Amino acid sequence: MNTTIKTLLNHKSIRKFEDRSLTNDQIKQIVQCAQAASTSSFIQAYSIIGVKNKQTKEKLASLAGNQAYVANNGHFLIFCADLYRHQLIGEQHEVDIATSLDSTEKFMVSLIDASLAAQNAVIAAESMGLGAVYIGGLRNQLQEVSALLKTPKRVIPLFGVAIGYPAQNPDKKPRLPIEHVYHEEEYEQDLDTYKQQLTDYDEQISSYYSERTKGARNDTWTEQMATMLTKPTRMYMKEFVHQKGFNNK
Amino acid sequence: MNTTIKTLLNHKSIRKFEDRSLTNDQIKQIVQCAQAASTSSFIQAYSIIGVKNKQTKEKLASLAGNQAYVANNGHFLIFCADLYRHQLIGEQHEVDIATSLDSTEKFMVSLIDASLAAQNAVIAAESMGLGAVYIGGLRNQLQEVSALLKTPKRVIPLFGVAIGYPAQNPDKKPRLPIEHVYHEEEYEQDLDTYKQQLTDYDEQISSYYSERTKGARNDTWTEQMATMLTKPTRMYMKEFVHQKGFNNK
Repeated sequence: MNTTIKTLLNHKSIRKFEDRSLTNDQIKQIVQCAQAASTSSFIQAYSIIGVKNKQTKEKLASLAGNQAYVANNGHFLIFCADLYRHQLIGEQHEVDIATSLDSTEKFMVSLIDASLAAQNAVIAAESMGLGAVYIGGLRNQLQEVSALLKTPKRVIPLFGVAIGYPAQNPDKKPRLPIEHVYHEEEYEQDLDTYKQQLTDYDEQISSYYSERTKGARNDTWTEQMATMLTKPTRMYMKEFVHQKGFNNK
Repeated sequence: MNTTIKTLLNHKSIRKFEDRSLTNDQIKQIVQCAQAASTSSFIQAYSIIGVKNKQTKEKLASLAGNQAYVANNGHFLIFCADLYRHQLIGEQHEVDIATSLDSTEKFMVSLIDASLAAQNAVIAAESMGLGAVYIGGLRNQLQEVSALLKTPKRVIPLFGVAIGYPAQNPDKKPRLPIEHVYHEEEYEQDLDTYKQQLTDYDEQISSYYSERTKGARNDTWTEQMATMLTKPTRMYMKEFVHQKGFNNK
């Protein structure tokens, strides 16, 4: 097993960091790695905002549901879907590209592009001995986040990534059984097999929590998901992305 | 610079592979690395379909716009947004989760989850000395791709990844200037700066093509983008993802 595979398999979200900032060289290398990721038809439909200012981080932490590690970390990155530069290009070349930019297809492209770049950034950071955690909570209040970061139309902040020197060493959470996630030739359609895999995984997750909490917690994965999904969240999103010029056609 | 950073920075899409299949052990390790990626609130909203069958690969190549490397590679993976297992969980626990699953927010989550996993798979493959290329062309005809792979409702094939032993060594294409993509504290708003960065990049890309084609090609990046975006593609997508139970609310 090579060192990169070890880094990938050893991933754990880090939510407590030392009080130590990344250097500009570290940040640059992480961003360069992000930019090296593949991009759909060379479109490069994303941008990254790095936040060092403590007050801004604290405002973001508050907007993201009061997660302390959004404020306390070595550096904070925000990955954005970005078709703003393409909008400018359309004006510059005097061509009508509004239908393309408005499309659900390009919304998907920008999300995929931003995510591939972000994962490269996380892997780069982890390979340097740093830890990281994705902050989806940034989508709790995107109107306020956008105002704070002054993102224009055709730009949507998607998620944050807090990076820093780890001050904790959490356990790795077991993933769904590989045969439940990975199918060959076609999607697994046998319902009994599919449900049995979930039942087996539920037992594994319940034992995992029970062992780590000395029995205080023993919920299963499907219970967690059922509870989470009964409370729809961020239902303003459809309208918000429309207003930002995405996902309209 | 550590070996993982080198792998990340050295990324080039490989579009010609040796006639040599990946072993099951290689495939398993790549999928395990994909699964190790972060997932939003532990939702694990994606699945992967691996295709070995030559006829299926050829059908996919034809559906993806006749790209030979979709048929000829060491292994072909299809990454799917997947909320089907969550649909089953809702039924099993007798809770109403339709609003969550239908939401634009969960559409975004599933795209981000699938993309983070995919990028881990690509990095794992590259660290093993393999090459890879993303196949967005799979979205040209998703109805047909879904039928071929027998994906149920709440599952959308997003893109393919062709993996194999490289039989070419292409140049790395220069990315947008780092200061155009990476901003600090807030999004760059100075229009002159922003446009100048694009002009500088255009010169770089034009020289890049010119050098590599002995002058036969010297188009700029903004010209490429303007041409591409004047032809809206995959405009069936909004309706397709709606029918598949995504992005409705």
